[in-house]
This record gives sequence, structure tokens and C-alpha cells, in this order.
Amino acid sequence: MRTFIVIGHKVPLDPNFSLNDLPGSAGRLDVLCRCVNSVFTLSHDIRRDVQLYLVLQDRVALRFSGARLRHLNPDERSTAALIRRALSLRTRGGATGEERESTPGVFVSERGLEAVLDKVRDGGTQVIVLHEAGTPLRETELFEPVAFVLSDHLNYTEPEERLLSRFEQVSVGPRVLHADHCITIVHNELDLRKGEQ
Amino acid sequence: MRTFIVIGHKVPLDPNFSLNDLPGSAGRLDVLCRCVNSVFTLSHDIRRDVQLYLVLQDRVALRFSGARLRHLNPDERSTAALIRRALSLRTRGGATGEERESTPGVFVSERGLEAVLDKVRDGGTQVIVLHEAGTPLRETELFEPVAFVLSDHLNYTEPEERLLSRFEQVSVGPRVLHADHCITIVHNELDLRKGEQ
Repeated sequence: MRTFIVIGHKVPLDPNFSLNDLPGSAGRLDVLCRCVNSVFTLSHDIRRDVQLYLVLQDRVALRFSGARLRHLNPDERSTAALIRRALSLRTRGGATGEERESTPGVFVSERGLEAVLDKVRDGGTQVIVLHEAGTPLRETELFEPVAFVLSDHLNYTEPEERLLSRFEQVSVGPRVLHADHCITIVHNELDLRKGEQ
Repeated sequence: MRTFIVIGHKVPLDPNFSLNDLPGSAGRLDVLCRCVNSVFTLSHDIRRDVQLYLVLQDRVALRFSGARLRHLNPDERSTAALIRRALSLRTRGGATGEERESTPGVFVSERGLEAVLDKVRDGGTQVIVLHEAGTPLRETELFEPVAFVLSDHLNYTEPEERLLSRFEQVSVGPRVLHADHCITIVHNELDLRKGEQ
């Protein structure tokens, strides 16, 4: 099992944003939508043995579970609509620490980064932080289950840096890339090591 | 210099499509927009030493030149708007084999795949076809200038296969990936070989 945790610093928790303005009033939700795409989509298929947490404003966690995921298309707009439905469920149902499923395979709960990390590590999962100053991915020993933490278009905040400093920091290459591009490279590295068809 | 050539089989040549329906009436233009993103965008920067051809319906070529490119944002919708402007210029100005610039760094001309390949190879560029049955990328000798050919969400047609059969076929890994994910992996491989900062 592979887990990705992507931190969204600016995405509004209120679902009343326009699908026509993802980079603006939706707080760069386009970045997170591309991460959803990179985590799950193959050409004409979905990666099932993967999950993704989007941690919004350190308060709300959206968990996408590949095993159950439906209605996911690769484009940003339809993915943003799934996220908006999850946030609507939260607004309608009241905030709760328990996960609730908004569409098949998409779960929403009140949970910040620390709680998500605790949950993920509970199963003995190796946690790796993607960071431009980290050691090279290709030289890193990786075990599955493994979880990778990434940030959206902004750097990690100081509290996040402190929380993440206990984990191994890994870099995918010499250029600083978008989070979704890093995810694609990580998947490719794991696929190649596994020789998976 | 790196060149990418992406074949779009279904994107309409008429610019009267809606930015709200890129996967539908715009003929999976979302796929090509993500390719533009993967070819050019770095975190808070643009790759300048790169160009991209989108070959639409084997008739129209849109060339994006990193050296001159402006107004490019990573999201699909704004990229689709740039493409729509290029197609509008074509409609307004009459179709011509000469390139015309619609916005800085975006050029449109009447040109099919064969003409694009001829143009690219003119400078002695190595041409590589991304293909799931190809030899592994990491074992492939690469020289810059190098060009990579990819298809959108559809397989290469028989005429395209014939045209491309003379070039080396290369695969990025054991899973069949979207074109934009392949581009990200190719860039990363070249970045790592070059050790570029």
C-alpha cells in the first residue's frame, strides 16, 4: 500500500467556491486536483492499492481510497467537484473527527496533519517527506507500506517543518517540481522496483 | 533543447468549445493541457530550453516555445484558453503553413505529424517514440537535442505507427501511464543525467 499526504494551505473549507476559478478563489485547488490525478490515474485504469490524504488548513482531511474510489476522472474540474461534495457533506452534517463518505472512496473528517500522520504510522508505515533538500529518491531504501508527504504550491510552514523533521527527507531530482509531478516520479520509481505489470 | 510532440486526435480545430467541458466537447483537450503543464512548469518557474508541438487531427500544429512563453499558468482551464486563442487566430486569419504567434511563445500553423517531424529532425535532433512496448528509458542513450513523441488518451493510429516505426521506441516503466505523466518522468530522467540545478 502506498499513501500520499498532500498539505493544502489555502483551499477554503467552505464549499461555495466556483469550479471556474480553481487557482483563485478556490485557493489553488487546481494543485490538489492534479495530485489526485497523479496518485490514482493510469491510462484507462485506477491504481487501487493507494490512498491519498488532502490535509486542508491543518483542520480537515479528505481521504481518497483507491480500493473504493469511483467517479474519478483525470481532469481538474471534475475532481474539484468531488472535493466540493466532500466539503458540502462536512458543512451540512457538522464537523466531526469520524470519517464520513461523500462519494464512493472519498472520506471527510476533522483532522489535522499530526492526526493524519498518527493514523498512517499506526500500521507501521514508513513515512518519507518530499523535500528539495532531501537525499536522492533513487538512493533511498523504500518499503511498502510507505507514505510520502508533500506540500502544495507553498513551502511547509514552521510548525509543519517541526512535525516532519523526525522523518527521512527525500528529493526526486535537481529541479524543484510541482507536487503532482513528484508523485508521478515516486510512483514510477516504486513501479520500476516492483517490476509491476 | 528538448522537444515534445503530442498527438491530439479529437481536439476540435474550431475554437468554439467551452472551457467548462474540456474532456467532452473539447475532445479531451484536458489531456493536452496537462501535457503543456508537464512540459513547461517547474515550481514557480518555467523551463525555457524546451518546446512542445501539439499536433491536432494531423492538420494543425500548435508550437509552444519555452524561450518566449508568457501567460502560462499550471491549471488546465487557463491553458485551454491559450489554445483556444491560437485556434481563433487560425480561424480569423485563414489557414496557412507559416507559423503565426497568437500569444507570446504560442505559434499556430497548418501542419501534420509528418511535417512536424521533418521540421524537428532538420536540426539533427534524436527522435524517440514513447510506447508501452519500447525499451526501458533508463537504459536508453539520450542526446540533447532530443524529441519525444507521445499520443493523447488514444493509441497511435496505423498511419502514425507507420510514420513512427523508423524511430526508437522507449517505455518509461511497467505501467501504462498518461502522456503528461510520461513527460514528467522523461524530464526527470534528463534532469538527473544532467545533474541540472
